[in-house]
Amino acid sequence: MKLTLGEICRLAGGDLEGDPDLPISGVGKIEEAREGELTFIANPKYLKYLGRTKASAVIVPRDAPPAPSHSLIRSDNPYFVFMKALILFNPPEALYGRGIHPAAIVGQNAKLGKDLSIGPHAVIGDGCSIGDGTVLGAGVFIGNGSSVGRECILHPHVSIREKVIIGDRVIIHNGAVIGSDGFGFVPEEGVYHKIPQVGTVVIEDDVEIGANVTIDRATLGETRIKKGAKLDNLIQVAHNCSVGEHTVIAAQTGMAGSTTIGNHVRIAGQAGFAGHMSVGDGAVVAAQAGVVKDVPPGEMVSGYPARPHREELRREAAGARMPEMLREIRALKKRLDELEERMRKSGC
Amino acid sequence: MKLTLGEICRLAGGDLEGDPDLPISGVGKIEEAREGELTFIANPKYLKYLGRTKASAVIVPRDAPPAPSHSLIRSDNPYFVFMKALILFNPPEALYGRGIHPAAIVGQNAKLGKDLSIGPHAVIGDGCSIGDGTVLGAGVFIGNGSSVGRECILHPHVSIREKVIIGDRVIIHNGAVIGSDGFGFVPEEGVYHKIPQVGTVVIEDDVEIGANVTIDRATLGETRIKKGAKLDNLIQVAHNCSVGEHTVIAAQTGMAGSTTIGNHVRIAGQAGFAGHMSVGDGAVVAAQAGVVKDVPPGEMVSGYPARPHREELRREAAGARMPEMLREIRALKKRLDELEERMRKSGC
Amino acid sequence: MKLTLGEICRLAGGDLEGDPDLPISGVGKIEEAREGELTFIANPKYLKYLGRTKASAVIVPRDAPPAPSHSLIRSDNPYFVFMKALILFNPPEALYGRGIHPAAIVGQNAKLGKDLSIGPHAVIGDGCSIGDGTVLGAGVFIGNGSSVGRECILHPHVSIREKVIIGDRVIIHNGAVIGSDGFGFVPEEGVYHKIPQVGTVVIEDDVEIGANVTIDRATLGETRIKKGAKLDNLIQVAHNCSVGEHTVIAAQTGMAGSTTIGNHVRIAGQAGFAGHMSVGDGAVVAAQAGVVKDVPPGEMVSGYPARPHREELRREAAGARMPEMLREIRALKKRLDELEERMRKSGC
Repeated sequence: MKLTLGEICRLAGGDLEGDPDLPISGVGKIEEAREGELTFIANPKYLKYLGRTKASAVIVPRDAPPAPSHSLIRSDNPYFVFMKALILFNPPEALYGRGIHPAAIVGQNAKLGKDLSIGPHAVIGDGCSIGDGTVLGAGVFIGNGSSVGRECILHPHVSIREKVIIGDRVIIHNGAVIGSDGFGFVPEEGVYHKIPQVGTVVIEDDVEIGANVTIDRATLGETRIKKGAKLDNLIQVAHNCSVGEHTVIAAQTGMAGSTTIGNHVRIAGQAGFAGHMSVGDGAVVAAQAGVVKDVPPGEMVSGYPARPHREELRREAAGARMPEMLREIRALKKRLDELEERMRKSGC
Repeated sequence: MKLTLGEICRLAGGDLEGDPDLPISGVGKIEEAREGELTFIANPKYLKYLGRTKASAVIVPRDAPPAPSHSLIRSDNPYFVFMKALILFNPPEALYGRGIHPAAIVGQNAKLGKDLSIGPHAVIGDGCSIGDGTVLGAGVFIGNGSSVGRECILHPHVSIREKVIIGDRVIIHNGAVIGSDGFGFVPEEGVYHKIPQVGTVVIEDDVEIGANVTIDRATLGETRIKKGAKLDNLIQVAHNCSVGEHTVIAAQTGMAGSTTIGNHVRIAGQAGFAGHMSVGDGAVVAAQAGVVKDVPPGEMVSGYPARPHREELRREAAGARMPEMLREIRALKKRLDELEERMRKSGC
Repeated sequence: MKLTLGEICRLAGGDLEGDPDLPISGVGKIEEAREGELTFIANPKYLKYLGRTKASAVIVPRDAPPAPSHSLIRSDNPYFVFMKALILFNPPEALYGRGIHPAAIVGQNAKLGKDLSIGPHAVIGDGCSIGDGTVLGAGVFIGNGSSVGRECILHPHVSIREKVIIGDRVIIHNGAVIGSDGFGFVPEEGVYHKIPQVGTVVIEDDVEIGANVTIDRATLGETRIKKGAKLDNLIQVAHNCSVGEHTVIAAQTGMAGSTTIGNHVRIAGQAGFAGHMSVGDGAVVAAQAGVVKDVPPGEMVSGYPARPHREELRREAAGARMPEMLREIRALKKRLDELEERMRKSGC
């Protein structure tokens, strides 16, 4: 596939500075792109690598200096333009065949939309609803009474339990489990008794959920993942949690019951949240942080127990000086001993 | 569905203080319950919210003050009574159809009990035994020679490997894997050679196992989860571990090989255990703790490396004072400098 | 099954010191082995237990003292000899039936090798290639255009996504997902836009991958797990990572995008790696470590943020002395106060 740089610029955005007729054969990372390819520089500090790339054209920030050696596309968000170009050269393929595979099983009173792709051994329970253009991979399980919106992709082996509600354009990767029972028990005479988990899970539009993620249904009410949130692999969301709009959560993070994460929050990998926490809009949580107190909007926290990141860095730095502090305390003691001795001798 | 408060009290327990004929239409959390519903207060410090709830009746601790505005049910364990009421209003439904689905596959010499529910694409290996009333969801896999007891529920996509033994009334959530090979290798000339994992896994009665949990089979002997233990989602139990009776473990906790957890232990999320650890009965392990030494019975540990929680709190508090300590050491130095200077001048 | 000690020694290696005709009925751990069985001592400090074992023969390090009570096999690597003996007594069984199960589904233009075992409900996509002697358990999914080498074992419910390349003798445990989309988004006006993940995953020969592991495909290029690497359960490998040859990684470890782990690295459980990290050959990473800086070859790191293990231990030790430091600073202050007072009084 070949496109001219002018066509790419028109379809992907940005302002062209160079040859609109330049033929482009593909896209690549700056260190791997070959002649005839398009690459990008999102961070101005990498502009120094411009001279070294073999790529013929480069997407750069709007204020980048001119580069006589390359055709440029200028943009406020070079990575966004690059993403669009990447799609041009890799148009979405139908991963899984169209139609309903004869080895799929569809329950009673299920409402099936148009243009579906339902793979072999998929199971759609009684009373389910599946929206137009949705793809259910091989072996996907949809429990009784659940609904999946339009143009979703549920990859093979996804489990959606009963009475779960999934919006439009949701992507769920292999092995994820949505709607398993919340972890709720009452101790009575040394034995734990299961509390029925009669709530549900709601996944709003444009959410993406990674492989082998687990999202538990609520005890009462709902667990909710809001519009545009993106969850990486192996994340645990406990019963009655809520994850805000356009919030991104990296892999292996876990949150205990009834925790509420705000909108536009960014959470790094392996972070943990105690139950009933509240994390404000725009907050940032560092990797492996252990959040046991509410996080105000816009705050960045790190460490265990998680505290404002600046404070954590100060502690970190002070921690490095502890051996020195021990030495200094010892030296002070010695000087005091000597002073006291001298005063005793001099009879002061 | 409607029940009178008197009927609920008779079926769920507790002592009624109020109108036995009060019709109750459902149950809810204190802040969400509506008029005509029943709620509960387990912790006396929330009794102040009693005035605000819209619920018509409230389950309270035995020593709660009288509340003229509401009918009360008094109990030593209000949450337990609430759980029973929740079950009354949400009687367990058959999630998955009864009988053996024609698209299930049953191996040779399998012993199948009565009243089974075996979903589509479930696979039961040769020589397996499945007890009366057990439910195997869609796509559940049971390896050759494994046995599952009575009245178990294995949700869709659960994998039970070969020769695993599962007791009665065990619940296993979607995607959990029981009996995968332990992680055992012998290094020889820079290459790791796999040690065959010829042991097994035993899951005792009344255990619940969360979604996408992994429990490895023993190298020799067995990995064992004892009666009534409850494991949350995404937990790792390595080969030859043992988890005690009525022990609860929160999500994403992991234990390395041959670790033994006692009875009635409580472990919070994302905790980790080195291999060959021993954790005594009734111990408590905080979230994200890293256990690298044995934990005595009844001890609460936290931090990395995990230590008695009080000691960890003292360290935490001292850590907060490190910048202050640095300042104080500097001040002491200055005062000593001055003293020494004065003594030098005064000729002492 | 019975073998003589002489036969075992000939087949498993080591030098015999004792009765070659001794009949051996099985193998066991030192504390569990019974009369007539063979056990081993790998670590010289456990030689003291030799007197207590009921086993009739023991594999010991070459320099162990003679033991008149037992027949011995001497070896430079007793555990390796034991592993070989374990295989002799537990020859690999065909876990899953031979042939292609009629309920498996094979796509168009798939190239299938000889002597396959393909379980019920396995799905092999269009254009796949499966090498001779490979086993695909029940419900295994292989996406379009992927290839799996010879003599692999993919346990039930493994998901291999499209265009993934898997070498020979690879073992993948239940529920693992290979080739899910990398976690890549471009923020633009407060919304995250998905970056198509058009790269792949390459798993080289002799790799073992644990249950419910997730390995994401690259954005561009490849994610690669090199020859002989062993990954435990529930591990996350993000897009564009590379794991070196004969590297072992314990359960629940996670690495963010584009991180490169060298050869012969050992990583303990629940460790985390930030993106774009580089870990040198032969490095060791402790459990729960949070790696946010490159690790040089051969270095052992621990803690969060991960630092050289010796430094971490020094900090740990100093941390334990903080309450004492606080007390000492207070004592020094008091002594200074007194000195200053005395000098003031004595008019120095």
